[in-house]
Amino acid sequence: MMKKVKVAVLGATGFTGEKLVELLLNHPLAEINYLTSKNFEPTSYSDIFPRFKNKINIKCEQFDIKRAIKRADIFFLALPHTVSMQIAPLLLKKKKKVIDLSADYRLKNVSIYKKFYKYTHKDRRNLKRAVYGLPEFFKDKIKKTNLVANPGCYPTSIILGLAPLLKSRKINTKIIIDAKSTITGAGRKALVDYHFSNINNNIWGYKPFIHQHLGEIIQILKDISGLHCKITFMPHVVGVESGIYSTCYVSFKKLTTFSSIFNLYKRYYKDCPFVRVYKVLPKLKDVIGTNFCDIGFGLSKDKKEAVVVSCLDNLIKGASGTAIQNMNIMCGFKEKEGLI
Amino acid sequence: MMKKVKVAVLGATGFTGEKLVELLLNHPLAEINYLTSKNFEPTSYSDIFPRFKNKINIKCEQFDIKRAIKRADIFFLALPHTVSMQIAPLLLKKKKKVIDLSADYRLKNVSIYKKFYKYTHKDRRNLKRAVYGLPEFFKDKIKKTNLVANPGCYPTSIILGLAPLLKSRKINTKIIIDAKSTITGAGRKALVDYHFSNINNNIWGYKPFIHQHLGEIIQILKDISGLHCKITFMPHVVGVESGIYSTCYVSFKKLTTFSSIFNLYKRYYKDCPFVRVYKVLPKLKDVIGTNFCDIGFGLSKDKKEAVVVSCLDNLIKGASGTAIQNMNIMCGFKEKEGLI
Amino acid sequence: MMKKVKVAVLGATGFTGEKLVELLLNHPLAEINYLTSKNFEPTSYSDIFPRFKNKINIKCEQFDIKRAIKRADIFFLALPHTVSMQIAPLLLKKKKKVIDLSADYRLKNVSIYKKFYKYTHKDRRNLKRAVYGLPEFFKDKIKKTNLVANPGCYPTSIILGLAPLLKSRKINTKIIIDAKSTITGAGRKALVDYHFSNINNNIWGYKPFIHQHLGEIIQILKDISGLHCKITFMPHVVGVESGIYSTCYVSFKKLTTFSSIFNLYKRYYKDCPFVRVYKVLPKLKDVIGTNFCDIGFGLSKDKKEAVVVSCLDNLIKGASGTAIQNMNIMCGFKEKEGLI
Amino acid sequence: MMKKVKVAVLGATGFTGEKLVELLLNHPLAEINYLTSKNFEPTSYSDIFPRFKNKINIKCEQFDIKRAIKRADIFFLALPHTVSMQIAPLLLKKKKKVIDLSADYRLKNVSIYKKFYKYTHKDRRNLKRAVYGLPEFFKDKIKKTNLVANPGCYPTSIILGLAPLLKSRKINTKIIIDAKSTITGAGRKALVDYHFSNINNNIWGYKPFIHQHLGEIIQILKDISGLHCKITFMPHVVGVESGIYSTCYVSFKKLTTFSSIFNLYKRYYKDCPFVRVYKVLPKLKDVIGTNFCDIGFGLSKDKKEAVVVSCLDNLIKGASGTAIQNMNIMCGFKEKEGLI
Repeated sequence: MMKKVKVAVLGATGFTGEKLVELLLNHPLAEINYLTSKNFEPTSYSDIFPRFKNKINIKCEQFDIKRAIKRADIFFLALPHTVSMQIAPLLLKKKKKVIDLSADYRLKNVSIYKKFYKYTHKDRRNLKRAVYGLPEFFKDKIKKTNLVANPGCYPTSIILGLAPLLKSRKINTKIIIDAKSTITGAGRKALVDYHFSNINNNIWGYKPFIHQHLGEIIQILKDISGLHCKITFMPHVVGVESGIYSTCYVSFKKLTTFSSIFNLYKRYYKDCPFVRVYKVLPKLKDVIGTNFCDIGFGLSKDKKEAVVVSCLDNLIKGASGTAIQNMNIMCGFKEKEGLI
Repeated sequence: MMKKVKVAVLGATGFTGEKLVELLLNHPLAEINYLTSKNFEPTSYSDIFPRFKNKINIKCEQFDIKRAIKRADIFFLALPHTVSMQIAPLLLKKKKKVIDLSADYRLKNVSIYKKFYKYTHKDRRNLKRAVYGLPEFFKDKIKKTNLVANPGCYPTSIILGLAPLLKSRKINTKIIIDAKSTITGAGRKALVDYHFSNINNNIWGYKPFIHQHLGEIIQILKDISGLHCKITFMPHVVGVESGIYSTCYVSFKKLTTFSSIFNLYKRYYKDCPFVRVYKVLPKLKDVIGTNFCDIGFGLSKDKKEAVVVSCLDNLIKGASGTAIQNMNIMCGFKEKEGLI
Repeated sequence: MMKKVKVAVLGATGFTGEKLVELLLNHPLAEINYLTSKNFEPTSYSDIFPRFKNKINIKCEQFDIKRAIKRADIFFLALPHTVSMQIAPLLLKKKKKVIDLSADYRLKNVSIYKKFYKYTHKDRRNLKRAVYGLPEFFKDKIKKTNLVANPGCYPTSIILGLAPLLKSRKINTKIIIDAKSTITGAGRKALVDYHFSNINNNIWGYKPFIHQHLGEIIQILKDISGLHCKITFMPHVVGVESGIYSTCYVSFKKLTTFSSIFNLYKRYYKDCPFVRVYKVLPKLKDVIGTNFCDIGFGLSKDKKEAVVVSCLDNLIKGASGTAIQNMNIMCGFKEKEGLI
Repeated sequence: MMKKVKVAVLGATGFTGEKLVELLLNHPLAEINYLTSKNFEPTSYSDIFPRFKNKINIKCEQFDIKRAIKRADIFFLALPHTVSMQIAPLLLKKKKKVIDLSADYRLKNVSIYKKFYKYTHKDRRNLKRAVYGLPEFFKDKIKKTNLVANPGCYPTSIILGLAPLLKSRKINTKIIIDAKSTITGAGRKALVDYHFSNINNNIWGYKPFIHQHLGEIIQILKDISGLHCKITFMPHVVGVESGIYSTCYVSFKKLTTFSSIFNLYKRYYKDCPFVRVYKVLPKLKDVIGTNFCDIGFGLSKDKKEAVVVSCLDNLIKGASGTAIQNMNIMCGFKEKEGLI
């Protein structure tokens, strides 16, 4: 039987931090040994989140580098961007493994980082070595790194949805993406805008053409396919409790058939335990609470265009679930270990 | 044709203030002429709430007593308690009509006010003259006053539900009330507790035995029936967008029949345009968006006990709708004018 | 003061029929005098829908042509497609005005009707004379007709969103439309698929490239602009209680500016009381419960592409509200009469 | 390592059947080997419920006793009441273990069964031997039986909430219970009443004083405490996706203290892994997706009355979770095995 690893979650009171704790508690080979949050003096974690009562008996503390180093070997950074890049170097110096859920190590090009996040990157040395943690495409690199840049929620759904068609050079690089997301993607913030009465039964588009995940989508699709795509990315908030549903509009260079597309995806993802390919359009609810990304298609009658739909639970496959998948790979565990 | 009255809404950006504006816009005899909010420098009201675009063309400003007096004759105070009692006297001195939606003028006994609201009352003079604005029981007094204390949302549903049985001396005075409410009753606040993800699909009880509306319920039931009730009041928050659903448990002094209860209520409310009496338990959704309070019953087989259910839209019959009903009565309009 | 017209709602127990009753009850110049439903033996309408108690006192009956003719002068047909075309001719023969909310009289081309609705049209004579009831573009024709084909919910939002750009020849005719709708658009049916637990918190796309509203969208956009568009139409169901939110992706023939688009729309809709044009993307909730269609834009940085978002309440501006707007125009009432 | 048991779920397409499959898939010592539903010809289970794709590869079939016997050793009967009693005897005769989630074996008194379920009991022989499957109180009997009557959802929450106070003789036997439940408790039925638009944002009480779970609550509380309670049980449907929240109103024989109640519950449930006792009122969401029952209290100032709140996920602790807990006990597994 394998030995348990000691893990820490920094930023354990945000949505992704809380989900990490929930998932790690069911992981047979991980032991949560350090939880931090800037918002709390040392407080029992289950006092902050009563749903964890009887499940975890550990305090949530302010981050302290010395204690951190003593307490854990694997660090999940569920921190705001710009904060991760200040803490990751300290941990890496001490030979710790770091899985960063912020955007800080995803974009290799620091000027693109600055464009989207309005902040000058402070840790270029580690940025170069960071591996983009999308296991479906970068498993070999993830195995060998100690710094994973965990993908964004929108990018995960969109890249998994588009990469096979792009890599196979079947589609044109001009693509329109209409994505629908729960508000939890925006973090746990005390804003009137996030009040129940503003979100429930509501839908709205935001940041047309300029959402910060656009740079990440374009970079990683290029890394995977070699193609620079011209992407229109239009995110929406919808009043659902979890999940992202991305509808991608693509056009084919040559006439195609439904089965050729379907088989292409089946082939690409045949060894990927968390990608499911359907002959119909998926429903969001089928992935909620799981680490699956569900993909389905619709083909136009003239066989020149398709919609590719890709959906996932934004806090699991779109964040904390993939983070644990990355931990599994980095630690030599089974890729599915502890995940459902 | 009657002349329009000029009205002001102070606190126009809270939930009840916004609902007042919505309802007043459909009132044929009222003209909104002054809107205030402490949160905004003069701003077009429809910029704050885009849903009012093309419907109202007026600024929302900081309160100023001189402008207030010039602009309107009827003032709706949709202000926090303790604030209303500072402003109402200024308006009353200038012979304005005031309909206060806060708790400040509801409790005649200042020590009970202090007990529940932790604040020493500052306007005892007007408190004495204030009329409790429940038109179903105090219409004659409302006609003659210039200061209405508009009822609380829970009290409105509960008093309308219980008063006929108490007044007729049919039930014992020990009563249990289990109430379910939307979170909008707590006001539009930027709290993580009110985040969509905390409210949606959630239910919880709060303030058992000590909710601040308890004093109001007991006082008014006594004013109406002459009886001092021993009430257990247990409010709950449920993840619905609007409404209050109060389930009241009563016991009878003598065996009763369903039809005698039903007829009692029909008789009491025969001239009340906004109370509907049913032979079955009402559904919350049937009153949402309306000024109705729906009441229904269930009788035990031994005919000794009953549940009385009373429900309403907390922002309409539980606040702004009744406020307009009060305005109608104070101004000599038809009681139903402008209300649905 | 104008005389009230007597109106009938056929199919009064579906979602659009029920909404018609709700709206007509607030209409000062209409009197509901006949309600039918195939599902009920004569039953008090407020027994079927308790929310109408004390508001309407009329029975809902099985349709009978003789009674129909005696009872009303204006008929709203909130019937399934293929049923309307059997009843409308009988009413038109008796000089009644008919506003049909089904799809039966929307498509002039009977072979396109057959393609999308799998049914051979049975009333070509009236089909020719029917006027498409989108008041924003066909008001003059609506004034003179006695048969209005009330637009579909998706088409209303999409046509209002796209027509100005197409008519002005600014955009290419290849357009992608990603629409999000409440499930109420599918009618009040007893299906496990429509069970609360299947809809709440769910999102899914359906009928990619083949939804039956596609023919209507293309025909009417051509009628308005003279252009035959190549449209990709991708509808989704989302777990909201009401509304449609259509996101349209367009590309410009020449570089454009935000203000030129905005002004174009302001100009087109300056006399349309129910279309509001925004400089930002609208939010669905701002139109719920109203007859407004809200339109907003986002322009790409290269000024070659835009998203046009158009949203409405599917049961009001997308069905029953526009139907009443049409009635107002047909009867010479003010276009806004009785609508909010 | 323990050997896996082969299990069957009869009625695998209802809500509790589906939840059983979900939970059993995560159980390390159970192997699902037989799934039935009267609604389907042999169909891949993951075609019926796409969310199980890649997780289970088994057909859902019509029930056949011969196949049943060959396929499994433990049978979960997620069947309608009156159906279970026809199938359980066949399985028991073949020495199979049966966990019945219907009401058929819960009420020892067949006339009470008939009163509440309007059906004459057909299997009195097994009824006598059946053990009520509430592990917190009947673990020893569950260990030894091969027929468990799995408790109802309302009764589970209510009995766990009240039993300690009754058993300790601290409270009077007249108790009022106001319970709030998701609609999923009523089963997956194709009814317009269960349409999303009827449930979302709605609340209503139903079956006052006569709900069929009342007999079960009274019987089991008597079995546990020896006291015959006079219970007013008032269930409500609320528009939440899962869960039951029971608010119980009790009065004390003598003055009490908060800590004495709290300690009483802590003591009673100290060896119960799935009951959590709080000093505050619990929130429903903290138990959703788990097998926990959360209990909390509020005490009146005069120390004579209390509210006891008990909440759970109706499909897990209120049905399928407890069923698996019972399986664990019957099979000698750890009580918590496979449950979260």
